[in-house]
Amino acid sequence: MARIGWGLIGGGEGSQIGFAHRASAGIDGRFEFLAGALDADPGRARQFGLSLGLKPERAYGDWRQMLAGEEAREDRIEFVTVATPNVTHFEISKAFLESGFHVLCEKPMTMTVEEARALVEIAEKSQRICAVNYGYSGYPLVRQMKAMVASGQLGRIRVAFAEFAGGFMADSADADNPRVRWRFDRAQAGVSAITMDAGIHALHLACYVTGRKVTSVSSDFAHGIAGRELEDDSLTAFRMEDGVIGRAWASGLAIGRTHGLTLQVFGETGGLRWAQEQPNQLFWTPLNEPTRVLERGASGLSDAAERASRITVGHAEGMPLAFANIYRDLGEVIASRQAGAEPDPLALDYPTAEDGLHSIEIIHAMAESAGNGSRWTNVP
Amino acid sequence: MARIGWGLIGGGEGSQIGFAHRASAGIDGRFEFLAGALDADPGRARQFGLSLGLKPERAYGDWRQMLAGEEAREDRIEFVTVATPNVTHFEISKAFLESGFHVLCEKPMTMTVEEARALVEIAEKSQRICAVNYGYSGYPLVRQMKAMVASGQLGRIRVAFAEFAGGFMADSADADNPRVRWRFDRAQAGVSAITMDAGIHALHLACYVTGRKVTSVSSDFAHGIAGRELEDDSLTAFRMEDGVIGRAWASGLAIGRTHGLTLQVFGETGGLRWAQEQPNQLFWTPLNEPTRVLERGASGLSDAAERASRITVGHAEGMPLAFANIYRDLGEVIASRQAGAEPDPLALDYPTAEDGLHSIEIIHAMAESAGNGSRWTNVP
Amino acid sequence: MARIGWGLIGGGEGSQIGFAHRASAGIDGRFEFLAGALDADPGRARQFGLSLGLKPERAYGDWRQMLAGEEAREDRIEFVTVATPNVTHFEISKAFLESGFHVLCEKPMTMTVEEARALVEIAEKSQRICAVNYGYSGYPLVRQMKAMVASGQLGRIRVAFAEFAGGFMADSADADNPRVRWRFDRAQAGVSAITMDAGIHALHLACYVTGRKVTSVSSDFAHGIAGRELEDDSLTAFRMEDGVIGRAWASGLAIGRTHGLTLQVFGETGGLRWAQEQPNQLFWTPLNEPTRVLERGASGLSDAAERASRITVGHAEGMPLAFANIYRDLGEVIASRQAGAEPDPLALDYPTAEDGLHSIEIIHAMAESAGNGSRWTNVP
Amino acid sequence: MARIGWGLIGGGEGSQIGFAHRASAGIDGRFEFLAGALDADPGRARQFGLSLGLKPERAYGDWRQMLAGEEAREDRIEFVTVATPNVTHFEISKAFLESGFHVLCEKPMTMTVEEARALVEIAEKSQRICAVNYGYSGYPLVRQMKAMVASGQLGRIRVAFAEFAGGFMADSADADNPRVRWRFDRAQAGVSAITMDAGIHALHLACYVTGRKVTSVSSDFAHGIAGRELEDDSLTAFRMEDGVIGRAWASGLAIGRTHGLTLQVFGETGGLRWAQEQPNQLFWTPLNEPTRVLERGASGLSDAAERASRITVGHAEGMPLAFANIYRDLGEVIASRQAGAEPDPLALDYPTAEDGLHSIEIIHAMAESAGNGSRWTNVP
Repeated sequence: MARIGWGLIGGGEGSQIGFAHRASAGIDGRFEFLAGALDADPGRARQFGLSLGLKPERAYGDWRQMLAGEEAREDRIEFVTVATPNVTHFEISKAFLESGFHVLCEKPMTMTVEEARALVEIAEKSQRICAVNYGYSGYPLVRQMKAMVASGQLGRIRVAFAEFAGGFMADSADADNPRVRWRFDRAQAGVSAITMDAGIHALHLACYVTGRKVTSVSSDFAHGIAGRELEDDSLTAFRMEDGVIGRAWASGLAIGRTHGLTLQVFGETGGLRWAQEQPNQLFWTPLNEPTRVLERGASGLSDAAERASRITVGHAEGMPLAFANIYRDLGEVIASRQAGAEPDPLALDYPTAEDGLHSIEIIHAMAESAGNGSRWTNVP
Repeated sequence: MARIGWGLIGGGEGSQIGFAHRASAGIDGRFEFLAGALDADPGRARQFGLSLGLKPERAYGDWRQMLAGEEAREDRIEFVTVATPNVTHFEISKAFLESGFHVLCEKPMTMTVEEARALVEIAEKSQRICAVNYGYSGYPLVRQMKAMVASGQLGRIRVAFAEFAGGFMADSADADNPRVRWRFDRAQAGVSAITMDAGIHALHLACYVTGRKVTSVSSDFAHGIAGRELEDDSLTAFRMEDGVIGRAWASGLAIGRTHGLTLQVFGETGGLRWAQEQPNQLFWTPLNEPTRVLERGASGLSDAAERASRITVGHAEGMPLAFANIYRDLGEVIASRQAGAEPDPLALDYPTAEDGLHSIEIIHAMAESAGNGSRWTNVP
Repeated sequence: MARIGWGLIGGGEGSQIGFAHRASAGIDGRFEFLAGALDADPGRARQFGLSLGLKPERAYGDWRQMLAGEEAREDRIEFVTVATPNVTHFEISKAFLESGFHVLCEKPMTMTVEEARALVEIAEKSQRICAVNYGYSGYPLVRQMKAMVASGQLGRIRVAFAEFAGGFMADSADADNPRVRWRFDRAQAGVSAITMDAGIHALHLACYVTGRKVTSVSSDFAHGIAGRELEDDSLTAFRMEDGVIGRAWASGLAIGRTHGLTLQVFGETGGLRWAQEQPNQLFWTPLNEPTRVLERGASGLSDAAERASRITVGHAEGMPLAFANIYRDLGEVIASRQAGAEPDPLALDYPTAEDGLHSIEIIHAMAESAGNGSRWTNVP
Repeated sequence: MARIGWGLIGGGEGSQIGFAHRASAGIDGRFEFLAGALDADPGRARQFGLSLGLKPERAYGDWRQMLAGEEAREDRIEFVTVATPNVTHFEISKAFLESGFHVLCEKPMTMTVEEARALVEIAEKSQRICAVNYGYSGYPLVRQMKAMVASGQLGRIRVAFAEFAGGFMADSADADNPRVRWRFDRAQAGVSAITMDAGIHALHLACYVTGRKVTSVSSDFAHGIAGRELEDDSLTAFRMEDGVIGRAWASGLAIGRTHGLTLQVFGETGGLRWAQEQPNQLFWTPLNEPTRVLERGASGLSDAAERASRITVGHAEGMPLAFANIYRDLGEVIASRQAGAEPDPLALDYPTAEDGLHSIEIIHAMAESAGNGSRWTNVP
């Protein structure tokens, strides 16, 4: 197994997403963590990098230093993860792609549709991978859903319901908390709060699993805490290619729905239900038959689900292994390119810049619809 | 306990709703089942009535005979349940109310808003009870939800999500089945299929539990089986009094969601979740605290829930006991009127013609919105 | 449908088991509630009987008056339910059987094995039905389990795990509460507390569903609250006919297991799991296949389950309908006898005095084993 | 963070436990994977080691070579994980401990009580850590249970129920499958099959969470497939220090209980329930209050649970992160020793050789009791 040099931008000390990326990237032993600019504060960035075992000259103080430093090395890293604040995703990803690094960018990939389009073009021109961390798509049973839809086990798809509800934004006492407040400030957050933060994952899953794009939307953006400029609860009717009827709910007010990301897909001959909080079971109901509980790791699943499943059936796999599947896919594709070989088709399953762009397009169309009395609005 | 003579119209042999009404009305021993017109076929109506122990002269062949027959008796019944096809609800309920009988009508109360308004007026003028069988509101933990909202335990209510999803209309092979087909025929079904059939319960629960009316709606009516004139899947954003944000989904395409009626209510200081399929548990999450599982019949619940709860905690109560709570309320109120006494305020909890009217108004506004590109539409 | 006169002994005002019997007996309209001795206090017994609509001469003050009164009537009741304190079950049931009434006795049928044997003989000699209210066996999906075992869908049965755990006896503050204290007094409770009170149901279900008797037991009886003479927690290994391996746990200390009656049955080719708290779903796992969720009321179930299922799939049925199935069976069998006809074989499914006897034998063997260092002890 | 050289014995290509150890050991970046003897076949062992990035001279062909090779190096590894077949655990662990390496041994630590005692002594004499991979004790909510018991939140503990049930040994067609057959061969498996393989985890959790040892047992060992020499289903009553009443069930016949490891603990003032298949929720019922659902990662948990919880509340953590907690504890303790510092007391939470010994003692006592008609047998 060829090893690949990897770097991380953002994800400083105490950051859980930073831990998740490091843990997930390391799980298969494919990536060597060689460089980082891990904190907005240069001193803390260097110190945390050192504490994680980076060499002093590669524990950078900021991403520009890291870009310059790695460009100058013969043994430069090949692949970088961008886990910085949203407003910086575009600039950093662009710079690294243009300098020939592969990039995995946290979601949302960019703030605007224009930036997202630009990134797709840059990735294409530079012939580098630009992936987006819709990490939930790495769950084995999400991949099982996709495989079942693709193989026709549900017949023609009729309805997809994508939901992400939690109490993330429900505490009035947090209204002035900087961790929460920026999400409702148009200057920092753009056109959407909860939909861009959480709903985007549910929408991506709906597209990923059905293999369809969203074509038009009718949205209601509302807020339950006075004074907010952006929505903390949104409901969207949409249509997908081939006439799939879509429904999406995103809420930050749903106290008790801890991390309520769920996807339901209903076709002519069956229905599927999956919930992120119980990710090792998938509920499949064939038409006029009892519901079946598909267990991650059990025999009889699709090739994609078997490949994504790492430990014995009945054990719990969680988010780090889902992320690790994204990393493994990327590692295999990068290694195949280096070797001039074709990658395993199953590895071409990571979310791409095109997926990142489509999500941004959807959410901007949703915001436009919401601003126009829920008028149906096309997604370009 | 004063006993009350009761009759049933519709609910013939093999009808499950008929069984449910007879079983539920009988549970408290308040009502004597004395008269019936139980089938559209006069012969079967009489025969089935006899088999249930009705006296020959009160096992009527149709509701007009029954109305005439009972009007003429000194010992006439006082209260009648109307469980006939939807298009006949108005005519029958009107006739019995005008003749001085109390009425419990199956939902939907009428086909049109005008009929519903008329029934409200007739009930008022005749000083008779006209109730509507939103039977789910008889579940003890639904009443607990209402009491918790009313007492302020959730603070100001922000969001209500009302859902009724099942695979009722998902089998293409049923498209020509008369049992299903009429629901998509505007002449027989009116303006809506799944929303009028199932969504109406979820909407009623949202109003019942929050104590608020719906003020405006934006709806998407869609169908997943070609050729249907009416919707088999609808999504609705709505607003309620006091700015409550509403979301409603009704689907007949949701294979595997057996009888998926759920209600979620989120306020400033807590959230509640209840599902009809597991009706003996209510999930309550106070802000920043662990979710609590409230068990029907446990100590510490509201007076309304304790009163509605009939058997020991931990046993399952189901739909017939929920219906029985509606019947018990009606029995107590009727008996109090006879006695010239004030009824227990907790008994005034059954769904009324006003509730029936409001639901019809909502669904007609939804259909109008759906026909106008999901434009926001006021509910009168 | 021939109607049958029915009486109730015990189950006074506020008694939940009394409510459950009256509600359940009434559900199918088969039984007319004509006589009762509803309370140990004669005055309250009569008054409560009157309030429930009994005629003054049949609202008896005690069971002996009732026996004498009904014997003397031409229109005497035919069938009586005994829901009095355990120590009186034998005497009352015996008296009514010997006078030609059919009897449904609450569990435990008697205090001793000798009494139980006597009752079986009396029932046989008198040619009257003596049934025991193991009401959980009326749940449709329990009957489905039995049918699946009987039809061989699980292959040879290997293991049955029967459990009834709750916090019924866990509150130290209740130690002196008369409602709890008598259960630990050998004079009133006999040889066992929690096992006789709760475990007996689980054991009956194991026998009912597998169609096997228990042949030997090794039990540990323990108590978690000092000073108790009898067990509040028992664990039992047992064997059944045909070598079925049995496991049983009964606990009154299990705070949080609200009413934790569950049954698991494992055969060569599949496993079944059912829990009383979610009685409308049965989990069936065929060997090497995904678990299936069988829904009460769905198509494809056994004849016995379909017959026992009363309302549409997806609605909740609860304990009163389970009891009602026992009553319906009894009603059909009694009516068939009156008519000189053969009853529907599916109606011969109610728990009999033989079942009551077997349970008592098991629990006495368990107590003996527990008293002998968990020595394996044969059940006669 | 000081990095620690680590090696792995066993866990060859395709081995899931090998993957789990490598992934878990790598998650915190504490350990460098420097040496391995990964397969019983020397060629495959070396090749797989190379493919994982080991240097050629440290990709050993067998554990003896590895021991010799590492002993000879200045930069030798400090810590080794033993994930080989059970019969080799003792010999390998002993050899590495005696040569000054820290050891994490898979369970069961040894085949006999004598070996286990020897290993405890060797670890003590060599002043090296000998840990046992009861990996489930690394789950944050298992640690929460332990903390709640220790802090008295449940009052005096009355009952512990430990269960591990699955269909692992249920397929008759596997009877001759070498993967299954050896477990029932006394020569290879020792005194027990399912209890030593699965039950041992449940028993360890009961001891770990309650902080008590098992003092005596009464066991029934049974088998459901003819011809097996050892049990595929066992039930055990036991007692723990301070009179805790214990119950344990281990089954390999339980088709449908995918990986059914659960622990229930009941005290004077509350009960706890946890299931390995849904490891991110813990059900806590305070006496006479509603059940609370404690979420991994939520605020308000114990220090031990917060420390063990790595990612945001609501995400799923699974088995690799549980194992990673064991590795992190070991890493911190080893690093503290090197630094001559006191480790964080919370890190002293990994399962030790003493725990490994106690489990072996329990299971040997269980086998003895089972062989003596379930006679109560003391654990030394």
